[in-house]
Amino acid sequence: MSKTDLQQQLLQKIEQGLQNLDIPIYPKNLYEPYSYAITVGGKRIRPMLTLLAAGLCKGTIDNALPAALAIEVLHNFTLVHDDIMDSAETRRGKPSVFKKWNQDIAILSGDVMFAHAYRQLQFYGEDEFYSKEEFAALFQSFSKAIITVCEGQALDMEFVARTDVTHQEYIQMIAGKTAALLSGSLEMGAIAAHALPQKRNELAKLGYEMGIAFQIQDDLLDATADPEKFGKRPGGDIFEGKKTYLTILALERADNEQSFFIKRTLDDSQPAAEAVNKVLQIMLNLNVIDDVADEVNQHYQKSRKLLDNFESSEYKKELENLLIFLQNRDH
Amino acid sequence: MSKTDLQQQLLQKIEQGLQNLDIPIYPKNLYEPYSYAITVGGKRIRPMLTLLAAGLCKGTIDNALPAALAIEVLHNFTLVHDDIMDSAETRRGKPSVFKKWNQDIAILSGDVMFAHAYRQLQFYGEDEFYSKEEFAALFQSFSKAIITVCEGQALDMEFVARTDVTHQEYIQMIAGKTAALLSGSLEMGAIAAHALPQKRNELAKLGYEMGIAFQIQDDLLDATADPEKFGKRPGGDIFEGKKTYLTILALERADNEQSFFIKRTLDDSQPAAEAVNKVLQIMLNLNVIDDVADEVNQHYQKSRKLLDNFESSEYKKELENLLIFLQNRDH
Repeated sequence: MSKTDLQQQLLQKIEQGLQNLDIPIYPKNLYEPYSYAITVGGKRIRPMLTLLAAGLCKGTIDNALPAALAIEVLHNFTLVHDDIMDSAETRRGKPSVFKKWNQDIAILSGDVMFAHAYRQLQFYGEDEFYSKEEFAALFQSFSKAIITVCEGQALDMEFVARTDVTHQEYIQMIAGKTAALLSGSLEMGAIAAHALPQKRNELAKLGYEMGIAFQIQDDLLDATADPEKFGKRPGGDIFEGKKTYLTILALERADNEQSFFIKRTLDDSQPAAEAVNKVLQIMLNLNVIDDVADEVNQHYQKSRKLLDNFESSEYKKELENLLIFLQNRDH
Repeated sequence: MSKTDLQQQLLQKIEQGLQNLDIPIYPKNLYEPYSYAITVGGKRIRPMLTLLAAGLCKGTIDNALPAALAIEVLHNFTLVHDDIMDSAETRRGKPSVFKKWNQDIAILSGDVMFAHAYRQLQFYGEDEFYSKEEFAALFQSFSKAIITVCEGQALDMEFVARTDVTHQEYIQMIAGKTAALLSGSLEMGAIAAHALPQKRNELAKLGYEMGIAFQIQDDLLDATADPEKFGKRPGGDIFEGKKTYLTILALERADNEQSFFIKRTLDDSQPAAEAVNKVLQIMLNLNVIDDVADEVNQHYQKSRKLLDNFESSEYKKELENLLIFLQNRDH
């Protein structure tokens, strides 16, 4: 998806804003990793959503920027700590903070990023055009988002060791890990645009639906993607033995024999391609693939319907196109 | 120091408040460590200071409680993460979170405690008797405190590997690690009591002076304490090769021969008692002991002078007694 003028313009504001964060130089082992973490890149989807939501609600983009930056710094803080927990040595093709420095430095730099993220919201405490209620609402939305993200990460860690995860629990996990922050990004953009509580809620829901759709879709695409376009073989998650929405649903629907076969294949560290294909076939037979595709579409449709409540604007158009693009992606 | 009725009454409010925090049950590996961390005890000095400051400024104690709890949860969050960094297996005589569970769980539980600490401040965003300025001031004081704590911890980590730490740098480190949160505790109590900015600042300064005094005094007592009362031999920090305010000052004043001897003794993993005693003697000869004792007294005097700016009350009496008690402690 090539970037529109509006996207480029907003992206430039975000990058400029990140460069203008007053990150101190000293102590070096605290602030260098912080600067590194936020400059190694990323698609800036969350702050972009904040700015688009603000535009959608007829707010001033510049006034939504501190909220957008708070979200982006917060998101990067979660990555710095997640990479320690996941022993992930690279992030966006570069060494992760914990790999480039060390674990203690990654913990502490993450902590200061967390505090700096909150501190961005101070703008709304000082700007006279924001009411106390709006300032408090931004603060609350932000706290709620990060608490839910922590819960999602905790569930993710817990699920690795469990064999009885239900599909409802899986949704709860991705609602935390992915949807909560997207939801907060849009909600905070609305608040920063002085939108009324109803509009804020609609955008919060939109972000939630979009996040759930996106994450389930990831699992689906792994199972169905055309290897020519997708660049990896279908069923990659099964090869890796990962619990996905599809494997969980399949296990819930499988008879004893199917269940035994699926579990054995997932537990196998190097399953044969035939076994993985058979698991995919079982998923098809149990209607897992079709039902998940329906579910993805339903979540996207809910998102798009929520967007219908807003007046036409270039921002609305942009969000519509984003949702259509995401819904139709094949990798 | 036996507890006065007022102290007991405030302590009860704090413990009750901590029990009433709405810590969820699930996910268990996120919230159990959090509950554990805040219930294993601690002297609750920081929240006590917040409530005393509120009383001193003629505020309602109950209205200062959310700020006090925010501070206490934040303090415990820093301990959970510090224990990972310091590989500390026990905390207050019990297993540390990272030891009792594991490192990943300690990182993540710490993170959610951080967010919950901030969320306590939401009370001031919702209570109509607090102005937007007061809410923002609480928020700012809190963010500043935790950012400074992170900086102090980063300096502490950095100093371990350095041999050229100046006494000014050492003060900056303890200002972060200890004084910042004591300062924030008192300042937030003042704000929660609707005190004017001047009074807030005076209490913030008082906390800073008290924190610096306390921390330098710890180093001093280690070198001068009577083993009968103190329960450990004088010079314990030298035996352990720790950088303290005294060793740093001594190295700054020492001639080449003295400097060589001090460094060699600190680097020795099992120095002889005679060597440690000789280092203590060098400190005496270089006036380090006397000058640091003076400095401790000066910081305490500044604290007590700042307290003179407030009207008489049981809270003032309590803070005065606390400062006198701390200044006169011998261990």
